Amino acid sequence: MASFVQPSSSPHLASEEDEQKYANVNWEELGFGLIPTDYMYVAKCKQGESFSEGKLVPYGDISISPCSGILNYGQGLFEGLKAYRTEDERIMLFRPNQNGLRMQTGADKLCMTSPSEEQFVKAIKKTVLANKKWVPPPGKGTLYIRPLLIGSGAVLGIASAPEFTFLIYVSPVGIYQQTSSGLNLKVDHQHRRAHSGGTGCVKSCTNYSPVVKKMQEAKALGFSDVLFLDAATGRNIEEVSTCNIFIVKGNVVSTPLTSGTILPGITRKSITELARDLGYQVQERDISVDELLEAEEVFCTGTAVVVQAVETMTFHDKKVKYMMGEETLSTKLHSMLTSIQKGLVEDTKGWMVEIDL
Amino acid sequence: MASFVQPSSSPHLASEEDEQKYANVNWEELGFGLIPTDYMYVAKCKQGESFSEGKLVPYGDISISPCSGILNYGQGLFEGLKAYRTEDERIMLFRPNQNGLRMQTGADKLCMTSPSEEQFVKAIKKTVLANKKWVPPPGKGTLYIRPLLIGSGAVLGIASAPEFTFLIYVSPVGIYQQTSSGLNLKVDHQHRRAHSGGTGCVKSCTNYSPVVKKMQEAKALGFSDVLFLDAATGRNIEEVSTCNIFIVKGNVVSTPLTSGTILPGITRKSITELARDLGYQVQERDISVDELLEAEEVFCTGTAVVVQAVETMTFHDKKVKYMMGEETLSTKLHSMLTSIQKGLVEDTKGWMVEIDL
Repeated sequence: MASFVQPSSSPHLASEEDEQKYANVNWEELGFGLIPTDYMYVAKCKQGESFSEGKLVPYGDISISPCSGILNYGQGLFEGLKAYRTEDERIMLFRPNQNGLRMQTGADKLCMTSPSEEQFVKAIKKTVLANKKWVPPPGKGTLYIRPLLIGSGAVLGIASAPEFTFLIYVSPVGIYQQTSSGLNLKVDHQHRRAHSGGTGCVKSCTNYSPVVKKMQEAKALGFSDVLFLDAATGRNIEEVSTCNIFIVKGNVVSTPLTSGTILPGITRKSITELARDLGYQVQERDISVDELLEAEEVFCTGTAVVVQAVETMTFHDKKVKYMMGEETLSTKLHSMLTSIQKGLVEDTKGWMVEIDL
Repeated sequence: MASFVQPSSSPHLASEEDEQKYANVNWEELGFGLIPTDYMYVAKCKQGESFSEGKLVPYGDISISPCSGILNYGQGLFEGLKAYRTEDERIMLFRPNQNGLRMQTGADKLCMTSPSEEQFVKAIKKTVLANKKWVPPPGKGTLYIRPLLIGSGAVLGIASAPEFTFLIYVSPVGIYQQTSSGLNLKVDHQHRRAHSGGTGCVKSCTNYSPVVKKMQEAKALGFSDVLFLDAATGRNIEEVSTCNIFIVKGNVVSTPLTSGTILPGITRKSITELARDLGYQVQERDISVDELLEAEEVFCTGTAVVVQAVETMTFHDKKVKYMMGEETLSTKLHSMLTSIQKGLVEDTKGWMVEIDL
């Protein structure tokens, strides 16, 4: 098995305490696959009641009714956020309350009871603390945190489940998309991701399995991922399978409006603010494919991808290339955001939440 | 506890064998809720491999990874069919191969491996046989059979799960919608159920949790359920949350075309054939709301609802009333279909599959 992190480069001798500080992971080769950790958090709540404090249990399979809402009718939401280890060995969360609020919106949409924002953040902290040795060393990656809210009670006819489970598991992760350069996206002109009144605007599990095939097909053709258009007109861009999209032209940064079919990304929201800080005019509005193809720069945002430049965009037979490199806005925004997340610059926005170790 | 079925009306004396013939259920009061039975069927298959024979296990909770495709990304399909006990005590299935074929189509859409049609039917038979005492007495209800195909393996980034589980559980059920008359439907003019390239045409779990809220809201207003319009134009009718829809005018029976957003119901298909046998012209095509409101008779079809008349339809402030009663086509079709299913008439179509007891 791989040894503990960088023992040779460590400035002091390895002690027993050091050995317990980090889990036995090859931190140099982190990808975006699951590495099981020590603990997960589980809380349950009956329909019509409120969540009370959950508990930490050893990470492992859960027991669930074959007749549960999640297994039969897709009654489930997930969230995704990260814990960061700073150079001075603090462990920080990025805007966890925003995930808690988004879970509440999603729960309302799927007729579930959600933990309160406070309960959500408290549970995240507790879970990360219990798994602190799995938070990668500074610069080596992050601890990805996956909260789930699922209809776990048995329900035969289509209806909301009589019991909900709030569960959090974590996994150390590295970079999401392993590309040496930018993303090569394909505009899907046939299939839609979401429709009016659907679940496109919340982090419902139902948004994801339907796009896996399109992702697979695009990847088989050499693309990184798929960009979907709106279901109502088929003319405006909406979202990539797993992230939001921005286009840049001159001093204007534009991103599709969150009007019910697009996920209101927390990275999206933060990047919007940082771009304004840099003096850009930020517009949230309908963006046509024509405009997309005429943009100077395009990038994606999301918890997993952070901020990632789009190198090429293909629509039917047309392929356009965008600005890349050190001088791009996406490079600046990536640096600004990750500097805050890693604690390298002062967090003047109050985005970071420290976990008491 | 309730006694065994109708011991007083039984023409022969109760023996030990009789006592074992039926489970301890109050058959007179069956609804559409889960009644746990003795056994369920479980088979597993790794991605890239094929399903081999599964096994019967006692009905109960299953163990699954918190990081599984179904819990995180909604990678799951279900089917629904019924076992019928005939007057001469045979146990029959209605077109189970059709469910098996539909599961294959859905599995392809959601990047899963499906059991073969033959494996599917064999597994259904095995599960019903193991639970035969839970098949209600003739005229008292049916044994509802719920096959699931889920992404049960752990997957962190959005992709297909590395392992799939095919599971079948059953429950004795009575009538789905407890209405003394017909359904009172509301046309949802705001929200859509499915979109082009989505999962509307397969029995994906992702089609269902998103409509629960609309069903709840409609029920709170006194409606039975919601009828959705197409996402592309918002002008044509598509499907009720849990069943297909037919309209009748003169000698023409029409139902929306299964062009990618509508579930190809097995009851729908069978009813289409029976209506043709009765001399009706059956059209599968786009049907506008205007036409719906001008129909003489409207009815819904589905495994759970069978064939059920629609009494009223409400679109915005307009409410129309349809023909009801003994003389309607839906009454005739319901009688024809259930007579075949219950073995009261000869099955000239080869739809029924008998289970060797």
